[in-house]
Amino acid sequence: MTRSFIILIFSCLLYGSKISAAGTAASDGDDGYRLWLKYELVKNASLKAEYLKYATFIAQTAEGDIVQSASRELHMGLSKLLGKSVHVTNSFEGKSGGIVLKLESGPDPTQQAEGYRIQLAGGNIVVSSKSENGILYGTFVLLRHMQMRLPVKGLSLASSPKVRFRMLNHWDNPDGTIERGYAGQSLWKWYELPERVDPRYTDYARANASVGINGTVLNNVNASARFMSQEYIVKVAAVANVMRKYGIKTYLSVYFAAPKTLGGLTTSDPLDPQVRAWWKEKVAEIYKEIPDFGGFLVKANSEGEPGPQDYGRTHADGANMLAEAFKPYDGIVVWRAFVYKADPNADRFKAAYEEFVPLDGKFDPKVIVQVKNGPIDFQPREPFSPLFGNMPKTPLGMEFQITQEYLGFATHAVYEAPIFKECLDSDTYVNGEGSTVAKVVDGSLHGYARTLMAGVANTGNSRNWTGHPLAQANWYAFGRLSWDHQLSSEHIAHEWVALTLTENQKASGHIVKLMLRSREIYVDYNTPLGLSRPWMGVHFAPEPWENKGSRPDWTAIYYHRADSVGLGFDRTASGSNALAQYRPQVQQQWNHSDQTPLPYLLWFHHVRWDKKLSTGRSLWAELCTRFYTGADSVVWMQQQWDLAKGSLDPQIYTDVAERLKVQRREAIWWRDAWVLYLQTFARQPIPAGFEPPKRTLEEVKKSVNVYLIR
Amino acid sequence: MTRSFIILIFSCLLYGSKISAAGTAASDGDDGYRLWLKYELVKNASLKAEYLKYATFIAQTAEGDIVQSASRELHMGLSKLLGKSVHVTNSFEGKSGGIVLKLESGPDPTQQAEGYRIQLAGGNIVVSSKSENGILYGTFVLLRHMQMRLPVKGLSLASSPKVRFRMLNHWDNPDGTIERGYAGQSLWKWYELPERVDPRYTDYARANASVGINGTVLNNVNASARFMSQEYIVKVAAVANVMRKYGIKTYLSVYFAAPKTLGGLTTSDPLDPQVRAWWKEKVAEIYKEIPDFGGFLVKANSEGEPGPQDYGRTHADGANMLAEAFKPYDGIVVWRAFVYKADPNADRFKAAYEEFVPLDGKFDPKVIVQVKNGPIDFQPREPFSPLFGNMPKTPLGMEFQITQEYLGFATHAVYEAPIFKECLDSDTYVNGEGSTVAKVVDGSLHGYARTLMAGVANTGNSRNWTGHPLAQANWYAFGRLSWDHQLSSEHIAHEWVALTLTENQKASGHIVKLMLRSREIYVDYNTPLGLSRPWMGVHFAPEPWENKGSRPDWTAIYYHRADSVGLGFDRTASGSNALAQYRPQVQQQWNHSDQTPLPYLLWFHHVRWDKKLSTGRSLWAELCTRFYTGADSVVWMQQQWDLAKGSLDPQIYTDVAERLKVQRREAIWWRDAWVLYLQTFARQPIPAGFEPPKRTLEEVKKSVNVYLIR
Repeated sequence: MTRSFIILIFSCLLYGSKISAAGTAASDGDDGYRLWLKYELVKNASLKAEYLKYATFIAQTAEGDIVQSASRELHMGLSKLLGKSVHVTNSFEGKSGGIVLKLESGPDPTQQAEGYRIQLAGGNIVVSSKSENGILYGTFVLLRHMQMRLPVKGLSLASSPKVRFRMLNHWDNPDGTIERGYAGQSLWKWYELPERVDPRYTDYARANASVGINGTVLNNVNASARFMSQEYIVKVAAVANVMRKYGIKTYLSVYFAAPKTLGGLTTSDPLDPQVRAWWKEKVAEIYKEIPDFGGFLVKANSEGEPGPQDYGRTHADGANMLAEAFKPYDGIVVWRAFVYKADPNADRFKAAYEEFVPLDGKFDPKVIVQVKNGPIDFQPREPFSPLFGNMPKTPLGMEFQITQEYLGFATHAVYEAPIFKECLDSDTYVNGEGSTVAKVVDGSLHGYARTLMAGVANTGNSRNWTGHPLAQANWYAFGRLSWDHQLSSEHIAHEWVALTLTENQKASGHIVKLMLRSREIYVDYNTPLGLSRPWMGVHFAPEPWENKGSRPDWTAIYYHRADSVGLGFDRTASGSNALAQYRPQVQQQWNHSDQTPLPYLLWFHHVRWDKKLSTGRSLWAELCTRFYTGADSVVWMQQQWDLAKGSLDPQIYTDVAERLKVQRREAIWWRDAWVLYLQTFARQPIPAGFEPPKRTLEEVKKSVNVYLIR
Repeated sequence: MTRSFIILIFSCLLYGSKISAAGTAASDGDDGYRLWLKYELVKNASLKAEYLKYATFIAQTAEGDIVQSASRELHMGLSKLLGKSVHVTNSFEGKSGGIVLKLESGPDPTQQAEGYRIQLAGGNIVVSSKSENGILYGTFVLLRHMQMRLPVKGLSLASSPKVRFRMLNHWDNPDGTIERGYAGQSLWKWYELPERVDPRYTDYARANASVGINGTVLNNVNASARFMSQEYIVKVAAVANVMRKYGIKTYLSVYFAAPKTLGGLTTSDPLDPQVRAWWKEKVAEIYKEIPDFGGFLVKANSEGEPGPQDYGRTHADGANMLAEAFKPYDGIVVWRAFVYKADPNADRFKAAYEEFVPLDGKFDPKVIVQVKNGPIDFQPREPFSPLFGNMPKTPLGMEFQITQEYLGFATHAVYEAPIFKECLDSDTYVNGEGSTVAKVVDGSLHGYARTLMAGVANTGNSRNWTGHPLAQANWYAFGRLSWDHQLSSEHIAHEWVALTLTENQKASGHIVKLMLRSREIYVDYNTPLGLSRPWMGVHFAPEPWENKGSRPDWTAIYYHRADSVGLGFDRTASGSNALAQYRPQVQQQWNHSDQTPLPYLLWFHHVRWDKKLSTGRSLWAELCTRFYTGADSVVWMQQQWDLAKGSLDPQIYTDVAERLKVQRREAIWWRDAWVLYLQTFARQPIPAGFEPPKRTLEEVKKSVNVYLIR
């Protein structure tokens, strides 16, 4: 018997390494491809037995591709979790001991169409919803429940999404590059489509559906008109056919001048009949190929992109023209509010508010205005955008950035849930206390018919999807928060670590701690006390000294305003008065440099170098303290990670450990750049206890210039 | 017993899917990552028994990192091939039944340093060489022998490389993009280095070593000066540390103006003492970090790149200055001969010869001049470059292009070995008959001390390395031919298919047939009868009509010279007389349009549309026949592939099948573009039997322009 056993083992092992895509010396181990959908075998015998009680059948009682995806996922998940292939049936009359997927009839005021309910009934686990999407979401939640090794006993879960359009924005170009992408090339292989449909598209859809994302914009907001051509529409349709099976609608970014550059018209004026007709036809052409097409995302009259203002029209004119083309269909128009003029005397902070608030009420109901979380541009910390709450008649969607454009690319570990939460939980006071940004975005404050939360994707064709293994958590966190913005950063981190990295409680505790502190640590060595935008050419290297941009707001000095007196941008009445765009209660928090919370200090005040802060230190000393302790805290992160080592896959452990080494080196680089540069204004020594940088400012500049030379 | 069996099966399967990086619904199956190093389990019992006879131990009798890599590879390979973990020892006195790796002492005139010998001795398989590299190569050959299921009985293999420097050229940019790359982003992750060393670097080195490649140039010949900075040198060193273990030397492309842009000097004049000193220091700096650094690759005064001619100096002046910097070291300077001036009256075909032949004998012995296989630029078919044979005092290295810049990117299947062979086997007649290009390149004709064959890599971070699964064969073929240019295209194809796709003889027969015909099929629908360069903006879409380039030789019409009389570039005495650059015997072959073999006809002659060709058809009819039968032959390729289906991994089968669909559509696109365009000159109908294109020339142009608009 032994021999046959051994043969069996060998053949199994080799089968294993055969199907293993990483079956080579160098790359054995977990390469992160499976994300949080690993479905590792349940080892706890009693728990496994409990799960097995409900694994005698899967009853798929409803038809449809999406429910089909749900039962397929459930079948695969259970086979991996329990090592048992559970058969799928479409009826279960009288039978118990299975999992039932069913469409709920009858109204339930508490539950929205996409909501789900999971409960025990008749000895079965019943996953129900009014919609196919809801069944799919519930199925993923049930699988997550088992992946987290939670008991079935007393199982009763129900949830509805707080936001209707939960989508990723891909800044992917047709040539395969990704603007602000740090995880390889675009997932979308335009040269291969439509004939070749990469199996990875399906895994992408699974990952998104598993966190409730129901929309994806495939191409960069700096859009190519190419995507409006028949050649590309059929390519997009092939991708949409995959997304549809997972309840995900496909959207496209559009180039506003396409009627001219692609259509050959003499104008792209939104009020021109020919232009309106061209877009109508174009949208009809798209719906012929993609019956459930989601809509357009538009970046217009922003950073050199064409738009309605090129013809003396307003953003509303442009958006409404496109909305008109979508009249016969479900599709929507998402119009970005990310605009700012090249005015040396203006404060970029105020630009979006000034351009859009006057347009409130002028947008077609099919239009959603998409607003970045902060007034500037995805900085490590920004106050919430003053637009939120100030356009009650216009649905405002939230735009978060998941990709780490200003957060160290793929070599710094920054868990972003706290950034998202900080903005969502901010109180605008527009309808009195408790008028949080979240309530603006989820429509509960102004009763928006259509609500949206978008995240600029951090995915690429890197095997592990996001470059930095820990960056997977940012994709996960965005999805979870777009479904329920009341979840805590800690709760989401615990979920993600348990699903992705380790079942070990102690190890996961260390990693969650690392994640929860990571953003503040980054801010400390990168942009403490409300500093912002020390970036120029590459958004990677420190350039606080940069003063030669093609426009004033494309320099670094425009933002920090360092001089011999002090540091920071005065946005009070004595300065740009951007604060006036907020409600009085908000102004109160930030109006006086003495009361302004330190994280926001330099966002609103030009502070004297020697001013004593609430910490008891002078501004200069406090800055130095942040830069130094921030850089040193990376060592603490390394230590936390090492404490988890024993419970982690070796390949993932090493990957992160090595990236943390890079982060440590670069954190010191940032520290030195800031400290040496600001010292030329502050003209004070590095406070006692901190070892002065080993290099000169000139040397730091040289090391930065390396990233700028050809 | 059954139950424990089943549990065992499950746990094995789950172990399998656990280590499987592709353990998800969509991407199970073979994703091509393992290339030709799969080491699939030997199923034939008697053969397995025969192998097992020599699998009782691995004796690594020599020290060193490279031998270490050899025994590690052998251990891993055997464990997968035989399902047995063979223990490694460093002595085997008296023992038999193992595999011995040993350094050969004593001279053997027939064997070069890197050569290997594999033979049976004392009941062992002995892999021996004078060098560590040789042992590694021999080990890979032995593993290939077993992967091909060949008997050990009478095993006796020995081989030495015919060329000394066998290297890949990566046209990879520091931002991760790859010029002319169609398999994703660069493998080299500069932002992560030096701290993070991607495990994939090791698999890259294994793949190269397994086919005898011993050098790699990491960055684009359109080089960034960045790589000469201390910041990047340490990054490069981290990659070199991996390559070294597999006998691969690391090289860099250099930006000739670096002394100015990086060094801050006022000039980059190669005769300027400061410039010479700067390069000397720079090279010394590199060797401090990379003691076995390979050398520089230089593209100078070519397509706008800076070079010695900017200072009135010659290519020799520039190359020799760099060679001087390498005097204290082993490193070499590889100087590209890819040059051509923007002269409307000149024939680009003649440019390299005119610039370089006068410099013969003027280059430092450390310099190798790297010449593209053809006189123009990696066209689907070109005559061999007239430089070969005409610089007897200067080592000429061969530059082939593996990446499919002009061969349909990653959506056309083109097996390139026949392209490489066609050039290598061409007879230059410089020392009488039999003076093949191969003999020039391997040094046997002119006794070059240093010989080189380079291939522009087709690798990227796509999971399967090369985008198109069949493109892996081109990497493999280049490596095999760089070791032994006498191998046949068919032999190499058979090897690769057996190692990579299937053990099934019948299936492999179909695939090899497909591969061997693929290049001619591509030429037929793309550039038949000696047409060339119908490309402009993207090197993907047909643009034979393109006539607006920033310089005359950057248009398409410059190359095909279509007019109302006929088609083709007259390079005889009545034309540019480029033919005069070849020996009389070569001129004879191509001098008269009646005798010129059809594949080269339009390379050398402007032929009347109605001229009867050796096929009995007029030029116009023959062109149409090629375009149509070429496009239709893709259907034959699809059929051959489908005949192999049953013996292929489903994921790989589908991937290629879908790409063949794209190729079929694009082949018709090419056909229509050419036929409709040339028809405007030939003014003749499509010959009977061929269905005229379903679209107009304007429609084809529009479909092409899609790839050019923003």
